Amino acid sequence: MMANNETGVIQDMPAIIKWAKSRNIQTHTDAVQAIGKINVDFEGLGVDAMTISSHKIYGPQGAAALILNKKIDLYPHLMGGGQEKGLRSGTENIAAIVGFGKACERVQKNIVIINNEVKKYRLLLERELKGLGAVIFAEQTERLGNTTFFAFNNIDGSTLLTALDRKGYAIASGSACSSNSSDASHVLLAMGIEPELAQGALRVSLGIKTKKDEVKAFLEALKMEVNRLKQLTAMAA
Amino acid sequence: MMANNETGVIQDMPAIIKWAKSRNIQTHTDAVQAIGKINVDFEGLGVDAMTISSHKIYGPQGAAALILNKKIDLYPHLMGGGQEKGLRSGTENIAAIVGFGKACERVQKNIVIINNEVKKYRLLLERELKGLGAVIFAEQTERLGNTTFFAFNNIDGSTLLTALDRKGYAIASGSACSSNSSDASHVLLAMGIEPELAQGALRVSLGIKTKKDEVKAFLEALKMEVNRLKQLTAMAA
Repeated sequence: MMANNETGVIQDMPAIIKWAKSRNIQTHTDAVQAIGKINVDFEGLGVDAMTISSHKIYGPQGAAALILNKKIDLYPHLMGGGQEKGLRSGTENIAAIVGFGKACERVQKNIVIINNEVKKYRLLLERELKGLGAVIFAEQTERLGNTTFFAFNNIDGSTLLTALDRKGYAIASGSACSSNSSDASHVLLAMGIEPELAQGALRVSLGIKTKKDEVKAFLEALKMEVNRLKQLTAMAA
Repeated sequence: MMANNETGVIQDMPAIIKWAKSRNIQTHTDAVQAIGKINVDFEGLGVDAMTISSHKIYGPQGAAALILNKKIDLYPHLMGGGQEKGLRSGTENIAAIVGFGKACERVQKNIVIINNEVKKYRLLLERELKGLGAVIFAEQTERLGNTTFFAFNNIDGSTLLTALDRKGYAIASGSACSSNSSDASHVLLAMGIEPELAQGALRVSLGIKTKKDEVKAFLEALKMEVNRLKQLTAMAA
């Protein structure tokens, strides 16, 4: 993963690729989270294969790309129709592919927005979260400009998520892939975070269209709910 | 296949399923071509699994459904994210799924249109094609209302296809899956059609919005091109 989908941590791809190359290991990077948020240079990285997806860069769902070193031989996973040079059978979703192409044209502009305005909002959000007692995961590490992953000691993450959802704010507990699971994030556990804290982790992702007023209104709602939940916990203790 | 994607022939599913059941063989039917053109009754057929696709019933590309007898155990083909009860990983294409649902609501209306107006146009088309000397494949067999698959002796199918394309008519040589192949249709060869005739096969599919004027204009263009190609062949002979 070029950037982690939960923490937003930007991985040291050049070091990983160098290590792999020195051992003749071919490399694939999942750049789905990275594209549109940081510069992604397939040739410069020297990676053998890279995946990017349309819906993560404001394109339509239904299209993704595998960028491939031509020296790599691939075997198809889906067979039958022989589309896309026999590598991916199934009627091509032309509209989604065209939309993906248009979305790619805006990627460089979006990177500038993410690393300027949006990052400022994320830092504001994190300042306030810490003021409320939250732990920001991987805070000191190089991360994507739009993502923050955090947890409160003694506050149940899913209760807070539900309360904010009722107020119109869609935040996430971990990755979308594990949204139906109540297990703690495997990423946080691998990072050495205590299971109890990891269990309540919440993720907020900002977008290129997020406005400062929206961030402030979210913070008001968050403060109100966090304080309410703190009081409930104190009463129960 | 409930209906063949090249010839439009409607298969005798009840007989096939009965045969399979008597031998304890589970059955899957590809109903992609059939849905929206003939009645498709999953429970009535007693099939164990059935596939249908959105873009064949005027829904958006990017969504399809596997209808399944709950007694069947499935193993996933794509793993990782665990979406759709672990059976099909990948971010769900919500917009396409909603569009597919809306398209399904219109299926019964479309069946009526296909088996009335559209079938009349197909019969008109086939009458004229035969007048020009074409062979209609599986003509006497129960077929979908909108599809005709035919070939001319002594006329190269791909030349005719290209000539009609230039006039704005998109017709097909065999299935979309084999559009880049110049081999004769494996369906026609399996039916016992001579390779030379099968080689030049062309498919015309009409839609629920096809108008009689369009069919007539197409027939004019077809006659002109067929006669032109016949003359060229005669001159070369």
